[in-house]
Order: sequence, then C-alpha cells, then structure tokens
Amino acid sequence: MSRLSAADRAAIENRMGDLHERYEAFKARRLALDMTRGKPCPEQLDLSLGMLTCLGADHKAADGTDCRNYGGLDGLAEVKALFSKIIDVAADEIIVGGASSLNMMHDTVLRAMTHGVPGGAQPWGKLPAVKFLCPSPGYDRHFSICRHFGIEMIVVDMKSDGPDMDAVERLAAADESIKGIWCVPKYSNPTGVTFSDEVVERFARMKSAAADFRIFWDNAYAVHHLGTPDRLKNILEECKRAGRPDRVYVFGSTSKISFAGAGVAMMGASKANLADTRKHLAIQTIGPDKLNQLRHVRFFKDLTGIEAQMSKHAAILRPKFDAVIEILARELSGLTVAQWSRPNGGYFVSLDTLDGCAKAVVARAAEAGVKFTEAGATFPLGRDPRDRNIRIAPSLPGAQAIAQATELLAICIQLVSLEKT
Amino acid sequence: MSRLSAADRAAIENRMGDLHERYEAFKARRLALDMTRGKPCPEQLDLSLGMLTCLGADHKAADGTDCRNYGGLDGLAEVKALFSKIIDVAADEIIVGGASSLNMMHDTVLRAMTHGVPGGAQPWGKLPAVKFLCPSPGYDRHFSICRHFGIEMIVVDMKSDGPDMDAVERLAAADESIKGIWCVPKYSNPTGVTFSDEVVERFARMKSAAADFRIFWDNAYAVHHLGTPDRLKNILEECKRAGRPDRVYVFGSTSKISFAGAGVAMMGASKANLADTRKHLAIQTIGPDKLNQLRHVRFFKDLTGIEAQMSKHAAILRPKFDAVIEILARELSGLTVAQWSRPNGGYFVSLDTLDGCAKAVVARAAEAGVKFTEAGATFPLGRDPRDRNIRIAPSLPGAQAIAQATELLAICIQLVSLEKT
Repeated sequence: MSRLSAADRAAIENRMGDLHERYEAFKARRLALDMTRGKPCPEQLDLSLGMLTCLGADHKAADGTDCRNYGGLDGLAEVKALFSKIIDVAADEIIVGGASSLNMMHDTVLRAMTHGVPGGAQPWGKLPAVKFLCPSPGYDRHFSICRHFGIEMIVVDMKSDGPDMDAVERLAAADESIKGIWCVPKYSNPTGVTFSDEVVERFARMKSAAADFRIFWDNAYAVHHLGTPDRLKNILEECKRAGRPDRVYVFGSTSKISFAGAGVAMMGASKANLADTRKHLAIQTIGPDKLNQLRHVRFFKDLTGIEAQMSKHAAILRPKFDAVIEILARELSGLTVAQWSRPNGGYFVSLDTLDGCAKAVVARAAEAGVKFTEAGATFPLGRDPRDRNIRIAPSLPGAQAIAQATELLAICIQLVSLEKT
Repeated sequence: MSRLSAADRAAIENRMGDLHERYEAFKARRLALDMTRGKPCPEQLDLSLGMLTCLGADHKAADGTDCRNYGGLDGLAEVKALFSKIIDVAADEIIVGGASSLNMMHDTVLRAMTHGVPGGAQPWGKLPAVKFLCPSPGYDRHFSICRHFGIEMIVVDMKSDGPDMDAVERLAAADESIKGIWCVPKYSNPTGVTFSDEVVERFARMKSAAADFRIFWDNAYAVHHLGTPDRLKNILEECKRAGRPDRVYVFGSTSKISFAGAGVAMMGASKANLADTRKHLAIQTIGPDKLNQLRHVRFFKDLTGIEAQMSKHAAILRPKFDAVIEILARELSGLTVAQWSRPNGGYFVSLDTLDGCAKAVVARAAEAGVKFTEAGATFPLGRDPRDRNIRIAPSLPGAQAIAQATELLAICIQLVSLEKT
C-alpha cells in the first residue's frame, strides 16, 4: 500500500472540511498527551505494592543465604527456579541479575566485542567489520546498542509470523561478519507478532557463515498476554536439537510484571554460554541485589502467582488497546490509508501509513499537542525506508487521553495522505 | 625487615616446644574459620533492617517521580543531594546507580577502552598498550579489572601517607601509555592508610604524559571510621584548582553503610566526565532501581543519619579490630617478625611478615582450619614481590573466632619465620 487510491482520495476530499475543523479544534484544546513510551500505568504498578513490604525480619533465602550480605554472583536458586519458567529454560540455564535486561543485553554484546563468545576465534571487536541483522520495525534500544559499538545494521523485514527467514538465512549464510540478530519473538515490539514454530525452527537450523553467530532473543513479553496467549516455540531447545546449543541468548525481565523501575532481569542460555558470562560477571560485580530477588519470590510465590498478576495487568491494558483499535477502525472505515496491528499481547499497536507519510503524521499530531514515538525510531539509525511505521503505546495514558490521541492520529493520517501522495 | 634477627631466632627457638604444641592443639580442634572477606557481620546488617519496610504506599520522589516506573538515568535528586556528601562532591557532580560500585568502576574502565574519555584522542583499546599504576598492597578486584582487559599493571609502593608519589609522578610523566591509577584513598584496602593532604595535592598537580590520564579514586570507606575520623582532602576540588577537573573519577557505595548485597553505588566527577558517562548509560540501561534509592533516603534522611549509623557500625567493629591488634601484640611481643596496621577505619588489618613468609604462613594457618586471604592477593596478578603481605578481615567472624584465628596466625608467623629465613 504505497499510494492513495482514487476512491480514498475522493472520500477524504469529501470530508476535508470536517477533518480540518476537528484538527483545529484539537489544536485549540492545547492538549499535552504522550503516547510515546511503553510504560506501565500507575494502576498496573499498584498491583505489586505488596512487594514493597513483603520482606521483614526474614531475609534469608531458602538455602540460608543472608540476602542482605555480599555473595551469589548469578542469582538466588529459588529465583532461578521461578524465573526460568518465564523464559522457558531449565533452572540451571539462567542467570538472574539486576533491574535491567537492557543492561544484560548491552553487556553481552560488549563482552562479545571485547572478549568474543564460546566458539568464536577472536573478539568481535578485533574484526574489520561486525554486522547484525535487524528485523524491522523493531526495538530502538537494540539498534542503539549496535550503533554505539559501531556494529553495522542490516534491515530485515518483519512479516506476520516473524522476520523474513529467507532473507535471514541467505544473509547469515553468505557473510561471516554477520555475528548476530535482534529478536523480540513474542508480541514483538512494535508489531505484536509472535514468531511461528517454523520461524523458530529455521532460526535453530539455519547455517551461518560465522561459527559464533548469536541470536539475541529478547523475550520481553513472554507472559504479557492481552487475551488468549500466543504460544512461542522454545528456541533454546530447538537450538540444542539442531546441535547448536550456544546459538541463542534469551533475555527477559519482570519490569512489566512487577515494577518497571525496580524489577529483576534474567538471561537464559546454554551452560557454555552461561559459564562464559559468569567469568565476566565475576570481574564486573560482587553480585546482584538479592533482596529484590527475594522480594519477587516471596510476592509471586510461583508461576501461578505470576500468571494471576499478568491477568490483572491484561484487565487494565486490554480496554486501552481495544480503544485504539476501535477508534482507528471507526475513523478510517472504508479507507485503505493505514494498516494496524491487533496484538494478543505486549505493549504496542503498530501502524503503517501510506509510504512517505509517517513523519508528517507524527509532526502534525505533535503540532496539535499529542506526542507519538518519533517516526523512524523503530528502524536502525532512525531511518524507516518507507517512512510509514508509527508505534502507538497505549499503556500509560488514561482512557480519555487514548481516545483523543487516537482520533487525532486518524485525522492527521487522512490529512497527510491527501497532501503527500 | 627482611631477615630474622639473631635475637628473634633465639627467642622463637626458646619457645618452639610451646608453639608446636599450641599449633597441634589448633589442628586437633578442627576449626573452620574464615578471615578472608571484608563482609559486614549480621549485627551490622541488622542496623538497616528498618529499610526493608520503610517504603509503603508512598513511593514518590520529592519531585513527584513515581519510583516504581521507568525513568531517571542517573539517580533521584534527593539521593544525589545526600550521597554527594558521602563522597565529597557537589550534588550535580554525582551519578547514583545500582547496587555495585565495582560495577561502576569496571564499566568506567571498559568505556574508556571502547570509546575513550574526554580529552583523549582515541579509545584506550586502540592503543598498542595501556598501563595502570597500582599502589600495592591494594584491592584485588581493581587489579582483576585491569587483567581482564589486558591492561598492564605497574606496582607502586604504598607508604604510610599514601602511594609513593615520587614514583607515581616519575612514571606518569614519562610514559603516555600509563592511563590510570587505582586508589583507595581513605582507610585503604588493606593498609588502612588515609592519603595525606600532600599526596592528594600532588595527584592533582602532577604532570602526566597521557592527556587523558585518570585517577580511579575508590572512596569505599569514606565514612567508615573506627574511632576519631581521618580527614581526606577533596580530590575533585584539588583537580579543579590545578586546572584538571577531568582527571579523577570518585566512587563510593552504601554497601557497608546499609546492605552489602543491596546497597546503592555512586560516582562523582567533573561535569564533562559525567556527561560522557551519561551518554553511555543511556545506551546501556533505562535507569537504576529508584525504589532502593528512595529507601536509602527515607531511612537515613540526612548525613547526620548516616553518621549515626556509622557510629553503630564502629561500635560493633572496633572491638573486633582491637582484638586482632591486641592478640598480635601479645603473641609477638618482643619480636620483630611482623608489622601490622592499626587503622582508624575501613575493613582490614594489614600485616607484613618477614620477606618470603606470607604464603607459607597462610598455608600453615589453613592446615589448622583458619582461612586468610590468599597471600599475594593484594598485589597485581597475585604476586607479592616480597611475599610478605597478609590481609586480615575481622568484620564477619565473632569474637571467639577472631581470637582463635589471630592467635593461630601469630603462632604460624613464628614457626614459618624460623623455618624460612
């Protein structure tokens, strides 16, 4: 969908007066709404308030470890046992860390740059070029890490069942400087796509020119359903089955389970990969905050506790997502000027305008007081080659703000579609 | 002091039967004591128990920030205001982070390796060689970071008022590959020395061949007095006065103020250095655990609160240090086979045996069931050139264990001195 159809042109021209009038009315209201960030709303954070006081005089882990003191490089045993179920690995295939999974991902890439990874001949940073495949639209902070370390990014299309695996396979097999790929395999940021079984299997089985190729599997929304859960095939098991247990690093966190600012991050991988990671951790830190880990186990108790919590999150979030999708459908009904996702989980609705319109739409909305994520942000270096993707983050704002913002977005899409194409 | 004197030889030979008998008696008791780690004891950790429950429904920072949510890269304003007083910098010269200052130091070195520092022409990692000056005995984990990144370590002697500044000045001025120096300037690990005003001033004023020379000023024991506090001159102010505001990174943490396993780390530096650090942090993380930061401010309230807490720590620790020092004096009275520190703060007693005896003493004590920090650990690469330094960590064990361990140590020193020299 790259050009405005004649029928759409006629339809929009027909309602132009109304669109302009509504746009100006929005401007006059001097809104200051922010739809940019995938942040939980206060009601979601309230779900975990009990965690703030659940540790009293009993601060010992199950094995007697005094969680207030030094010690324990890679997480408490009971936290490993519980969190391994979130990211679908065994209890001895996980490292539990501090508050930020982004930090773990960053540090994992950086360690590969400075020291290399198991199976690699040398540190990536010693090579003339390092490249990552970047399924896009994707998560801007993944791309920022590559940019920061001078890793060249190769855009791969995101399809409805995951990355374009024909392209991934072709590229990875042909170029040994391609060392990695970023994936958000479930309720992908921003498209909401969950990778199909076939995609997961192809990831495990595909050939790579680089012997030390790594998949950075950011399973950020593993249990973050909005309705009937999607099922994601177990990548680590598939990699083992394919004889490549070291191919994948799995990441996750409780940032959107407990507290976004004070959760616990985790990393799953083969024993060889984790042993390598621990060698670095032993130099970098004395150990993570064990009290916060203990808080999480005390508060959630087991996977059922986490699932119950996620149902409560969904009950808060679903109406917000529904509102976005309904208003877009209502406002743009009968037109083919945009397509948007209807995700079963995660934190975003992804919208594609006609080619060449996204930047102008976001700018037009900003002029009327509603901020959306900068157009292009979902692509490497902020460059959306078709200038069409807009990420909508409905989690934080209230119902009225979401309704206003989405209505304005739909108005701007029509105005810009007519002007630009 | 490198050889056993004739008088000492006679004195030890005279009591040899008694020493052997006591040593064998220790062995028969099958002790399993651990004097290796500078860990707080449970009574010290109990001092902060109130912190575990001091956050209830009110989880907002002074500026209204919901500390449960994302946001805030470098620490809450009120935490900066309070902690800046610990490490003696202004409230806008500090970054407050996660639980580990070692992590901050490691990451600061690593960023210099991958990206360089303000004032530098290129990343340190691009140079044919990078060297650090390592005042020794010092903190083994500093040296481990250098080793991990292939940074060559040059040993500089620790004197009673700080590092041998003649050597530091000479080396730094002559070799531009010398990029940094590790310092624990107050109650130094392990020697207990606090750097004199003259040493601090010379650090600020000295010439360095490298334009981007950095002092890693690990002020780990800034408020950790055992008696009358030592006073440490403000290094950042001295560097500013000398026209070199970017020369120093100051580090600190509350690991031995609140909880060793769940404290808050901090880093002070010039605005240029901090701006540079924030650029990296923005790629590495969404932000530190703000709830734990808020807990610290709520619990301690102000510097007076922290000082009161430190007095309670001292009341627990001082008798332990006194016991070590008294037993050593009693057991080794009249001999010159060892020298030990009488620190005014910090976590260690540092003991020097006669040259060539430390390894054997530690091994002999281990045979009888008491572990001391591995001899050599306080030097780069674990190599004490005179094999004489032993680090004694009295904080964790109870009174009886300390008495037994120190008595055994004194016995082993005498036995080994006679055998080895």
